[in-house]
This record gives sequence, C-alpha cells and structure tokens, in this order.
Amino acid sequence: MSNAKKIADDARLGPAVPPPAPEGTKHFSFKLLKTDGRARRGEISTPHGTVQTPAFMPVGTQATVKAMFMGHVEATGAEVVLGNTYHLMLRPTAERVARLGGLHKFMNWNKTILTDSGGFQVMSLAQLRKLDEDGVRFQSHIDGQRYHLTPERSVEIQGLLGSDIQMQLDECIKLPAERAEVSRAMELSLRWAVRSREQFERMDGPAKGQALYGIVQGGDVPDLRIRSAEELGKLPFEGYSVGGLAVGEPQHVMLEMLDITLPAMPTHKPRYLMGVGTPDDLLESVRRGIDQFDCVMPTRAGRHGLAYTRFGKVNLKNARHADDPRPLDEASTCEATNHYSRAYLHHLVRAGEGLGAMLLTWNNIHYYQDLMRGMREAIEAGTFDDFYARTKEDWARGDIAAL
Amino acid sequence: MSNAKKIADDARLGPAVPPPAPEGTKHFSFKLLKTDGRARRGEISTPHGTVQTPAFMPVGTQATVKAMFMGHVEATGAEVVLGNTYHLMLRPTAERVARLGGLHKFMNWNKTILTDSGGFQVMSLAQLRKLDEDGVRFQSHIDGQRYHLTPERSVEIQGLLGSDIQMQLDECIKLPAERAEVSRAMELSLRWAVRSREQFERMDGPAKGQALYGIVQGGDVPDLRIRSAEELGKLPFEGYSVGGLAVGEPQHVMLEMLDITLPAMPTHKPRYLMGVGTPDDLLESVRRGIDQFDCVMPTRAGRHGLAYTRFGKVNLKNARHADDPRPLDEASTCEATNHYSRAYLHHLVRAGEGLGAMLLTWNNIHYYQDLMRGMREAIEAGTFDDFYARTKEDWARGDIAAL
Repeated sequence: MSNAKKIADDARLGPAVPPPAPEGTKHFSFKLLKTDGRARRGEISTPHGTVQTPAFMPVGTQATVKAMFMGHVEATGAEVVLGNTYHLMLRPTAERVARLGGLHKFMNWNKTILTDSGGFQVMSLAQLRKLDEDGVRFQSHIDGQRYHLTPERSVEIQGLLGSDIQMQLDECIKLPAERAEVSRAMELSLRWAVRSREQFERMDGPAKGQALYGIVQGGDVPDLRIRSAEELGKLPFEGYSVGGLAVGEPQHVMLEMLDITLPAMPTHKPRYLMGVGTPDDLLESVRRGIDQFDCVMPTRAGRHGLAYTRFGKVNLKNARHADDPRPLDEASTCEATNHYSRAYLHHLVRAGEGLGAMLLTWNNIHYYQDLMRGMREAIEAGTFDDFYARTKEDWARGDIAAL
Repeated sequence: MSNAKKIADDARLGPAVPPPAPEGTKHFSFKLLKTDGRARRGEISTPHGTVQTPAFMPVGTQATVKAMFMGHVEATGAEVVLGNTYHLMLRPTAERVARLGGLHKFMNWNKTILTDSGGFQVMSLAQLRKLDEDGVRFQSHIDGQRYHLTPERSVEIQGLLGSDIQMQLDECIKLPAERAEVSRAMELSLRWAVRSREQFERMDGPAKGQALYGIVQGGDVPDLRIRSAEELGKLPFEGYSVGGLAVGEPQHVMLEMLDITLPAMPTHKPRYLMGVGTPDDLLESVRRGIDQFDCVMPTRAGRHGLAYTRFGKVNLKNARHADDPRPLDEASTCEATNHYSRAYLHHLVRAGEGLGAMLLTWNNIHYYQDLMRGMREAIEAGTFDDFYARTKEDWARGDIAAL
C-alpha cells in the first residue's frame, strides 16, 4: 500500500488500534502440573482460555487453517492455533485486521492465538532481503512491495493482530553453518530480544494479559545454545521458544540440542519448539521436556494425499486402497477418520477433489491432537515411558494389512 | 483398465452387481400437490426419501459436491444430488462403486441420487468421439482409454451406481444448429429412449423403485420439441427431462421452448430442466411448470469468489469488501452467509485459500435452496406471482451499499 493510500484509508476507516482484551481477561500464566521423567504436563492460561500442555498448535498461516472450518479444528481438541506475521502483515495487513476487531474475530477463532515474529518467513519467502542491526528490509513475494521489519514493528504487528502469545524477532539460519555465523545470528537475536521486550511493554502487552516469548538460537553449537538460553532467562519473558532447529539437520542433532538447551532454560515457563515436527519428533521432544509445538506437516500432508494415523503414515494415492471399504481407523473418534472408506479417500485424492484435502487435513490434525492427548494422559498417570514404547511399536507395525 | 486386469480384479473382488434397494423401499412416485398458474408444487418419492418440488439438485460430479461436506449439503435443505455418469464410469468406475455398495454408500449420501446418462459430457469433455446408431465411442480425457457408451451400457452403469433417478442416453447438440441436424439428433434420441427403457426393465429398475426419465430434445425448433415430447410420452417413463437447452441460446429462446414444450409433456410426471441455471432461470422456469433443476453454477461460482445472495450476485474479489465487517447476509440461516465478514471472505478469495471456496460454495447452495423453498411456499400459498415480482425487485436493487 502506498503511503498516500494508507493515510487516505486511515482517514476513512479510523486509526488502527490493537483490539481490546476480552472482558474478564485472565493474565497469561503457566502452571507446571506434573512431570514424568523430563516430560512435563502443564496448563497455560491466556486471555482466550486455557491450553493443556504438551500442546500441538495447528498452523493457520493466512488467518485460516488450510482446508478446515475452525469449528472442526476446535472439535479435534486444539486449544491454540498459530498465525504467521509475515503473511498477515502483507495481506490483509495488521492494520486492517485491527480495524476489523483483531485476528480472533477476523478468523472466527475465540481460543488462544500464537503468532510468530515474521522473521523466519522473511528469510524463506521474501525477495531481496537485507538484514542489518536495525532489522530486515525485504520485498513482498506477492507484489514486490518494500517492507522494513524491525523487532519493534514485529511486536507492533502482533499487538495489532491481538495475538495472545507473541514471539520476539530473531534471525534463524539454516544448518549446517559455521560457528562464527551461528554466533553472530544468536547475538543479534539476543539484542533483538531486548528491543522486542521493550516494545511489548510499550504496547501494554503485559497489562492485556498477553505473552511475549524469547527465542533460543545457537544452531547446533552447544555453548552458544546455552549462552542464548541463559541470557534470555534474565529477561522477563512469559515463555521461551527453541528456534533454529528442524532446519536441515538430522533428528538426532535436534534432540541432542534439546538435551543440552532445555536444562539451561527456566523451569517454570512454557517451552515451545518452533516448526516441529513429525509425530516421532513430538514424542521424542515431549520426552525431553517440550510443552508446545507447531508444524505445517499435518495440514500440508493432508493436501497431498497423506494421512497420519496410529498405524503410521498412510499414502492414500496408493492403488492398494482403491477397493478398500475400511475407514482409515475405525477406532478414531474423528468423523474424517472413521466415517469414509479408504476407497473413497483414494478416489478423492486421485481425482484431485478438494474434499480429499478437507478430510485428510481434518484426520491429520485430529491424529496430532490424539497423540498429544495420549502423551498428556500418560504424563498424568506417570506412564509416559510405556506410552512412548507402545506408540513407537504401533508405528513400526505399520498400516493394517491390505485386503 | 486392461481386460486382463479387469478380469483379475473381478476374480479377486467378486463380480460387480448393482447394490440392493434399501429395506422397506418405496417405489418411485410423483404427487402433484398444488398449482399456482403454471407453477407446480409436488413431491417425488424414491427409495432414498422424498424430494419436495420444485427442487434444485446440487451437482456432485465425481461423487462429491465440490468443496462441501455432504452433511452441510443436507443442512442446506437439498434432498437430491446429481452424479455424472461420464466421470464416474472413468473413475472410480461403476463396477468399483457397485462392489463398494453403491454410490450412496461410497459418497456418504443417504438421500436421493439422480444420475445423467453420460452423453452430454462425452460430447463436451471426451476425445475422439464417434457417434453412430449404436452409441458413441470415445477416449477418456484422463488417460485416453477407449470406451463405448450405448443406451444399454449407460443404464447398466446407472444401475451399478444404484441411482434412484436415471436418465436415458440422448444426443445433445449445441445451438444454433440447422433444422436437419436438430431433427436427426432428436430422432436418434427417441430410438435410444426405447432401448434405454428396455435395458432399465431388464435391470429390474422398476422393481427396485427406481426411475428412468426420457429426455425431450428438438433444439429451438417448436415442432421438433413437440414431436419429441409426444413420442416420449407414449413410453412408460417415470419422469421427463427437457434437454438441449441452456447450450448457447439466449434466455428468451429457452423460455419460449419451455412454453411450447411443457404443454406437450405428461402432466402427472415430474419435469426436469437439465443443466439450468441462474437464479433468474429457475424463477422463470418454475413459473412455466418445471419441477427439477441441476446446475454447476452455484458450486463453480463459489470456487471463483462469487456469492449468490438475495441481493444478486456479489463478487468477493472486489476491493469494496476489503474493510467490510458485515456478513454476506445477516438474515440468512446459513452459517457461511451470516457468520463470516465480507472482509474475511475477500481476504480468503484474494489469498487463494480453500476455505474461501468452501464458504462461498456452501453459501451458494444454501441460497439456491432458499430460493426453491421460497418458491415452494409461494406456490402452496397461491402467491407465486408476488414472490416472483418481489424476488426480481430484490435482485434489481442489488447488493447492500458499500460502507
């Protein structure tokens, strides 16, 4: 939007101010209810309700969890979804969302919303990026328009969206990378953490009951991870994210980094592993003490004919399903999973029908929530190790035999 | 599928036989309940329930009403959907659907299903078509495989699908066309009507409570339309379709053909105008005595950002909706229509999000059903002319004023 156009819009529509907190707002809090080994069972409170942890947060990139009605997302048990600051700042813009009453109202989702800072997607999607101490300049991948995203502007945007759980701007680099480069990006992210926090307080985030999480960086370098975690721990963040993992390294490297990083992070704050992961990643990471996850995998896979089930990953494109009258999993409580034959799902996927994506996305989000429910119950019961072993066995056994 | 592969499949999976009629099957019947002018209020009974007429039948081409859950289709008030024989015979094949228990079970739709004969889409979609007295040879638009569709095979396929209301194979030509060509195609369609009926009786269609409709052809030539209607009327069809309209001619030509054709058709059988049309087409055609319609318009428009409403057609792509917090129509009983802001719908459409197509398709099918409900109630009350005038006024007034 040109500046002249923006000013004209502001005059016509009124200024964009962050949406008010809901009546009777609860302040952000985290209760650690129970541990089992290093696995943690907790409860997050936000202005839009509670989130039982460990929790998986479906990704609602452009103010929609792709191919799903939000009512169905809620029915799977999801209590929080993620919005992408990068996408939303470009379209429909944070100012427009604010004028329309905030992201919750805009997308018909009255539970908790977490937003990222935009930094990760600037790096992966935007054009002509130029990063310096101040922030990052880039051009939109949609129309080439120029933007300047700083730590302050990122928090401002997240405030305009009315996000319950906001993220500091950080610099996330790909692995493998040289130590010097990892260190530079991590130190920059620490300085941006301070500026993000200052902006969050200027925006009255704490008074609105919202949260701002700091993000631990440091690539695959143990001492840099520890320094990042310890320095961030000195700032009054409501929670802490582990960023910069699942960016090209093998799973065992990611898990080693969790083993090293988590003990250096505050115990009584939620811990969010960003952009992760496969069902196995979730199981392994909860075992190590992670409380929150987000990932596009279940939604993206659903649009490509892939179903996540307790039998592992099922490719509905395969001809073995063409005459199979059985549902994906008759024991599931999800209508998408127990109510449609594999033959029908196969047909929809082969024919490129939207209903195929709708049903498989629904199934996948439901399965991810089932997995999290299973882990939460196991931690409560002190039987996480059993659950872990049994779940791995189920996956290893694979899909039900073909007819 | 090669013949060898087909025979191997048959041996493994058992032969494909038409699905049984539901228990306590009602036979097809049509009651003419009330008339108001030439407009008719009726009720069709089929093995899968009743259909209040005049009725609009959403199109479920490939065993799915595109971008909708069948539960939502049902919630709009639809009591019958259409399946396309051409698409289904290619993929997943009628034999496969039969082995899986029939089309109702396959697509999770327990109400009435009407199928076309496949002829229309062979003409519009298939490759290398060759039509002769026997039938039509063509190659699939999907994989180039060769097929031979005859009147007998078309009815056989519809029986295998378990269709409640089946159509004879006919030849539908584009308008404008020479009289000789219109006449040739109409006479061929009459001979195919006889063969279709014989096959339907060999398949025990009447005993299963199913219906076969004859199709009136004759293009825009009045005496050919009348001859077609009268000759078909001598055969024991359960209902009659008017085909070969809305194929390129102006609306007034279509309506003139209805004025000429309908009086020559049996009064106590349902009358189905195939492939029609806009809301205005429906209003004009019900006024002339049509009982059933199908059209891809509401579903296709929904995937292209267009909403049908009582204010006429609304293009959600237009910038005027970008900041509009109002729903499409707050007085609607459809969640898609009354629960999401125009600004949100605009955003979804601009961003190419699947939820945009899902919501607008739902809105459009709901609006079409609302329009039919309105017409049915008006005929019952003897106030069809008022309803007709008021509805046209609403459309002429157009959308609510921009903010």
